[in-house]
Amino acid sequence: MSLDTVLARIDADLDQSLDRLLDLLRIPSISTDPAYKPDCARAADWLVEELTSLGFDASSRPTPGHPMVVAHGGEGEKHLLFYGHYDVQPVDPLELWDRDPFDPEVQDTAKGRVIRARGSADDKGQLMTFVEACRAWKAVHGTLPGKLTIFLEGEEESGSPSLIPFMQDNAAELKADIALICDTGMFEDDTPAIVTMLRGLLGEEITIHGPDKDLHSGMYGGAAINPIRVLTRILGGLHDDQGRVTVPQFYDGVQELPDAIRAQWQALSFDHGKFLGDVGLSQPAGEQDRTPLEMLWSRPTAEINGIWGGYTGQGFKTVLPAQAHAKVSFRLVAGQDPDALRRHFRAWVQDQLPADCTVTFHDHGNSPAGVMSVTAPAFDAARQALTDEWGKPAAFVGCGGSIPIAGYFKTYLGMDAMLIGFGRDDDQIHSPNEKYDLESFHKGIRSWARVLDRLA
Amino acid sequence: MSLDTVLARIDADLDQSLDRLLDLLRIPSISTDPAYKPDCARAADWLVEELTSLGFDASSRPTPGHPMVVAHGGEGEKHLLFYGHYDVQPVDPLELWDRDPFDPEVQDTAKGRVIRARGSADDKGQLMTFVEACRAWKAVHGTLPGKLTIFLEGEEESGSPSLIPFMQDNAAELKADIALICDTGMFEDDTPAIVTMLRGLLGEEITIHGPDKDLHSGMYGGAAINPIRVLTRILGGLHDDQGRVTVPQFYDGVQELPDAIRAQWQALSFDHGKFLGDVGLSQPAGEQDRTPLEMLWSRPTAEINGIWGGYTGQGFKTVLPAQAHAKVSFRLVAGQDPDALRRHFRAWVQDQLPADCTVTFHDHGNSPAGVMSVTAPAFDAARQALTDEWGKPAAFVGCGGSIPIAGYFKTYLGMDAMLIGFGRDDDQIHSPNEKYDLESFHKGIRSWARVLDRLA
Repeated sequence: MSLDTVLARIDADLDQSLDRLLDLLRIPSISTDPAYKPDCARAADWLVEELTSLGFDASSRPTPGHPMVVAHGGEGEKHLLFYGHYDVQPVDPLELWDRDPFDPEVQDTAKGRVIRARGSADDKGQLMTFVEACRAWKAVHGTLPGKLTIFLEGEEESGSPSLIPFMQDNAAELKADIALICDTGMFEDDTPAIVTMLRGLLGEEITIHGPDKDLHSGMYGGAAINPIRVLTRILGGLHDDQGRVTVPQFYDGVQELPDAIRAQWQALSFDHGKFLGDVGLSQPAGEQDRTPLEMLWSRPTAEINGIWGGYTGQGFKTVLPAQAHAKVSFRLVAGQDPDALRRHFRAWVQDQLPADCTVTFHDHGNSPAGVMSVTAPAFDAARQALTDEWGKPAAFVGCGGSIPIAGYFKTYLGMDAMLIGFGRDDDQIHSPNEKYDLESFHKGIRSWARVLDRLA
Repeated sequence: MSLDTVLARIDADLDQSLDRLLDLLRIPSISTDPAYKPDCARAADWLVEELTSLGFDASSRPTPGHPMVVAHGGEGEKHLLFYGHYDVQPVDPLELWDRDPFDPEVQDTAKGRVIRARGSADDKGQLMTFVEACRAWKAVHGTLPGKLTIFLEGEEESGSPSLIPFMQDNAAELKADIALICDTGMFEDDTPAIVTMLRGLLGEEITIHGPDKDLHSGMYGGAAINPIRVLTRILGGLHDDQGRVTVPQFYDGVQELPDAIRAQWQALSFDHGKFLGDVGLSQPAGEQDRTPLEMLWSRPTAEINGIWGGYTGQGFKTVLPAQAHAKVSFRLVAGQDPDALRRHFRAWVQDQLPADCTVTFHDHGNSPAGVMSVTAPAFDAARQALTDEWGKPAAFVGCGGSIPIAGYFKTYLGMDAMLIGFGRDDDQIHSPNEKYDLESFHKGIRSWARVLDRLA
């Protein structure tokens, strides 16, 4: 009965909930670019004010990078921690956006109403589903739904450099019975999902150095080594013809999928033709002896996320550049050792350098893969709550992306994490024209009310 | 006797000559970047004024791109045309310059005094050697040294799109007995040289298209094709292990060096260890069965002059970009057909595309290679004049760079060209901290006085 009242309140207040989200989306909190540091602080302050208004004891806590938002409130036997992040990805290429990425708008589309803005789905829209669920609960009950800690990070999109030290320094304050993380999606748009398997990430930047200055290709071309030639030669060999990564020992420790999980995944109606078709592709490009879901959830990858060197402006310049650069990342799975992998990759590059070339590496951090222990009773309770809201049985799924926080909660605070989110595959997170379905937002708020009702 | 007076006048007026050059160097006439279009026009106007002050009938002539400067003056049986270019290369990476590239300065260095600025050697300093020789001659004799046409281009660094139409439209006006071109260098810094063999150039830009939008490597990595992976795979195979270009039919029509030229080149004391050592290299990187001078002067090359795709800013972004790009150029030698080569290259790229990828090409123009007919008497006269000035026998050499104007003069105006210049190998043309030796400028002016004395 009281849950129904909360759900009705959520429905009635949706427009106000949306207005608050749009306010947050207007703050360009791009964490990887130092130019936006003040905006990140502003987003943190906005959230502190919001949480304080709900009765939380909330504060913006300084770090060497962007601040953490920590808020405590409510009472109860079970202590739940909620995690989200208020920072967003850069917006380039800006010219591919239909509108200013930080001027959010609710738009009608063929597939329903969407909230269009950078960060709408990743992760401001998602974190606000939890905040708004708390708000509705408070309005109906006069109290928060239980003993809650809200922990919001501002460096998730830039490698979380301050996260582990902050968790270590504040372990007693942050430790709860279980962590709830809202930064994932539904399965195939209409099946609620709890992520139980997460890939890790390792980021590396490489610079090939050749001549000690840029050269004119007329004067030196043919005799002088060109670092772009060396870089393309090396990175062009990162995959073999079958899509396997060629770095020695790359697959060390990678395990085959347990039969039970394999069977569950086979039962999921994953339409990889549609998944790829939605982004203009048709052929799975990974290891050719693997299923598409394995490529995405349980197999490691190597990707070149950026490459640059020489003249890249308008027109033409016949330059042999002194350097060439690339940003390379690896998606990791359970069993892989990130430190060893970085060593193997560096040695593999080094071994292929021709005379006169050197290489420098820049470590962009790493996070190990994670596998949740789904036997905790909370997992079943949450699964039931989600099934109730969405009218379809919730699935335990894998996630190709890296959400290192789940592993950190286990490692540094000794608590399990449940990853529940309401994103859709076509949200275009990290891309131009990111959006979050209004339905994701609305039913996401309702879902958290149901989950909190069962858990707290 | 009168030549000596002219030479003495050049020596006495050097400071004023230098001031005029510095004025010209202050104009940022970067032809490839549309933002500098007004500056290109300003450089042309500056030259018109300068030449008018010497008694030339000079004008800035509009084209669809940047203007041509054409000036006629003097009298005599022999009609000489002088060619240079007033446009310059872009200045990036700007942070590697010691000073503003367009705030020229005369600096003392361990190797003598140098004029430091973008365009000091390529080609403003060089073209001004001829103008200043005319000025000194006029001051001493009251007339120009002969019947002269001065023809200065503003699009040499951006593919000369207006040059051929302009030459065709003004053929009668531009036709002379021989063309003098000042855009080349000395041999090994102290041997005056006349270039008799020039490589051509073909420029191509390729864009690999994969997914129809940028993707998140967490969500799609492993299943979606990454255009950077495809681009590096293709371009990484542009050379084989022996430094040969792998594009099919690339070497069609390429001829072996005549024995006489090979012998002359072997007699030249080319120190390739020093040549490469000056730019931080040690090993000739071209075809391993060729001498370094062949690699530079008589063999074709393939170079990646620019590459870009994905995220290239600070920090890291786990993006799978929708596109990846490269600028590729080929240095051509006599016998190669540029149009056929472009077709072969495009087919070679196309044939290597995986499923779901497409490619688009952008033609950045081409110029065929050139071989001068050195039997014309003017070549011997000029060789003598240069030998007199520099105290060392002048050499007939090759040039790795492309100076298509020489071929155009032959093709469209039916006249031979002599390429005489005073640049040094360490001038860093097209690179940060470009310079022109004060000695190049000074003795360059004197050299032209001597050449004009013999030719005009």
